Amino acid sequence: SRSINLAVIPGDGIGQEVVAQGLKVLNAVLPQDVKLETKEYDLGARRWHRTGETLPDAELEALKGHDAILLGAIGDPSVPSGVLERGLLLKLRFAFDHFINLRPSKLFPNTDTPLAGRPDIDFVVVREGTEGPYTGNGGSLRTGTEHEVATEVSLNTAFGVERVVRDAFERAAARPRKKLTLVHKNNVLVYAGHLWKNTFDKVAAEYPQVTTDYLHVDAATIFFVTQPERFDVIVTDNLFGDILTDLAAAVSGGIGLAASGNINPTGAFPSMFEPVHGSAPDIAGQGKADPTATILSVALLLRHLGYEAEAARIEDAVSADLAERGGHLPGSSGSGGGSARGTDEIGDALAVRVAG
Amino acid sequence: SRSINLAVIPGDGIGQEVVAQGLKVLNAVLPQDVKLETKEYDLGARRWHRTGETLPDAELEALKGHDAILLGAIGDPSVPSGVLERGLLLKLRFAFDHFINLRPSKLFPNTDTPLAGRPDIDFVVVREGTEGPYTGNGGSLRTGTEHEVATEVSLNTAFGVERVVRDAFERAAARPRKKLTLVHKNNVLVYAGHLWKNTFDKVAAEYPQVTTDYLHVDAATIFFVTQPERFDVIVTDNLFGDILTDLAAAVSGGIGLAASGNINPTGAFPSMFEPVHGSAPDIAGQGKADPTATILSVALLLRHLGYEAEAARIEDAVSADLAERGGHLPGSSGSGGGSARGTDEIGDALAVRVAG
Ligand SMILES: CC(C)[C@H](C(=O)O)[C@@H](O)C(=O)O
Ligand SMILES: CC(C)[C@H](C(=O)O)[C@@H](O)C(=O)O
Repeated sequence: SRSINLAVIPGDGIGQEVVAQGLKVLNAVLPQDVKLETKEYDLGARRWHRTGETLPDAELEALKGHDAILLGAIGDPSVPSGVLERGLLLKLRFAFDHFINLRPSKLFPNTDTPLAGRPDIDFVVVREGTEGPYTGNGGSLRTGTEHEVATEVSLNTAFGVERVVRDAFERAAARPRKKLTLVHKNNVLVYAGHLWKNTFDKVAAEYPQVTTDYLHVDAATIFFVTQPERFDVIVTDNLFGDILTDLAAAVSGGIGLAASGNINPTGAFPSMFEPVHGSAPDIAGQGKADPTATILSVALLLRHLGYEAEAARIEDAVSADLAERGGHLPGSSGSGGGSARGTDEIGDALAVRVAG
Repeated sequence: SRSINLAVIPGDGIGQEVVAQGLKVLNAVLPQDVKLETKEYDLGARRWHRTGETLPDAELEALKGHDAILLGAIGDPSVPSGVLERGLLLKLRFAFDHFINLRPSKLFPNTDTPLAGRPDIDFVVVREGTEGPYTGNGGSLRTGTEHEVATEVSLNTAFGVERVVRDAFERAAARPRKKLTLVHKNNVLVYAGHLWKNTFDKVAAEYPQVTTDYLHVDAATIFFVTQPERFDVIVTDNLFGDILTDLAAAVSGGIGLAASGNINPTGAFPSMFEPVHGSAPDIAGQGKADPTATILSVALLLRHLGYEAEAARIEDAVSADLAERGGHLPGSSGSGGGSARGTDEIGDALAVRVAG
């Protein structure tokens, strides 16, 4: 009989609330013969305040034993910027070699978009997850003086670029439109840019059925708002992917609907699924957070573990629910997403639908 | 009697056409006692094809003798990516220490915006122009092999950050809303991020009348499309500024209206004014390019040289012209801006208006 051994990191702020709904829907969608085991890990701002720890070695080891990780949100204004991001969230992405940061964008019916005319948005960003300016390389000399020099080094390897580019071509080839756009800034960042572009062109030769395109990151932001329907699959660097996927979320229903997967396709380490939004402390504990982003992240998790039918059932349920019940109001913070229906209500509605 | 000794670099593609209109309006707006001298520099793709040169030392020297530079657009698909950008455009910005890259965004009447509800957009981005990931620092090891490592180094100095932050506070203090937002990514790029944030906080203490805010660059893109009216002045790094100002142009009338100034406020070197758009080879030579971005860049040029009344006259003329005559159609390439009226027609209309 089948089983899923899931690690759960609810984290901070609305993380707790949205993860509870994600698990509710997961339980509802799984066939009876699949045994779901979950183990909660107390990591995030409270833990750090209590013990000073972000991600101790023992817990990193323990996490390795799971099939996948579901994460709510990490971060709180009471913790200095960077401590939890680099000590916990990015540490997990790097330790578990999550080189595919998968972020789909789809404009569901009845949802909010700031764009006039509701363009047809249905694309996926394949963001590199283990290199670029995210490696923590850099430093500061004469810190705090008028002679300070601070550097940030973007590291890019042929190995790292090729594996994410290949993954993106595979995904593009499997979609009806079969189009892949590389986004970089190779007219300025010429060293990294040439590595990305040359790798892209080399791999493209193996996928003649895939239409390819290249855009500078600045130009890409223009098309995200004027012509988002031109995108099918996008592959890009870690930092450009970070920026573009928040913009993508904003134009396609808001950050309350944006799911993501930090994926290691080799299976060497567990992959981790999380909403794109943050911990939204301003609306935490009020039952106002939209759990849809987490629930859609659960769909990505199921797909990654081979439960394609169940993943699709969740996505269809979200689409049908929005079509019938109407959109979720964006949250005041813009980072969590509030909702006209409550957090529980949306979770319940989706759980009923997927069980249906 | 007063005089302006202007260097003109029409450059490539639509650069020629739009610069001609910029000069037409400049001539029309200047009081009779101001003597305008212009000298054209043949730099760009054609020059590079002919001689292999991008910006020879002699011309760099000659450019130093001018009061200001008006630039059309640089770049052509026939030139390898990076050659003209780094050999000419960025070389000028760095050689002349253009540390203020000024990019105003204003949603004029009757113009296109992809945003529903036409929000009230009127902000200015003060982009750092001489540091960050634009310094050309970086390299490639084992280039072209499966073991290639490519790096890009973002360089940030206390000197460089403080001068642009101070300039931005001055600009914010002089505007009615007096609000300054720092955009960075200090939860990931912690070394550069701390330098920017600490400098910002230090200088803020000297401007108690200015309201301050901080946003991560990813979150900033969300607000650009959901709540652009929250911005007044933004100060940011060279690369974040590049990305954000294309997005800003897209939401506020399109890239055909976006002006910019590469400014050295010390006066040690001439400042350079250019539309944000590129050379748009797809519509070059057809009289379809919108010259408004260049004409508004001429307004920034005049303001920089102390001709405030003339600068305002151009801006008012653009606003009145758009209100009466209607918007300009965005160009097919998204990078140049085509126009329902022709290039000449718009230039003529504005020249007539500013002449009053
Ligand atoms: C919290 C932060 C470190 C993170 C990132 O920059 O990757 C977030 O913005 C995201 O997109 O998941
Ligand atoms: C052409 C390119 C080098 C330039 C930049 O990246 O600064 C352009 O995008 C701009 O914004 O002026």
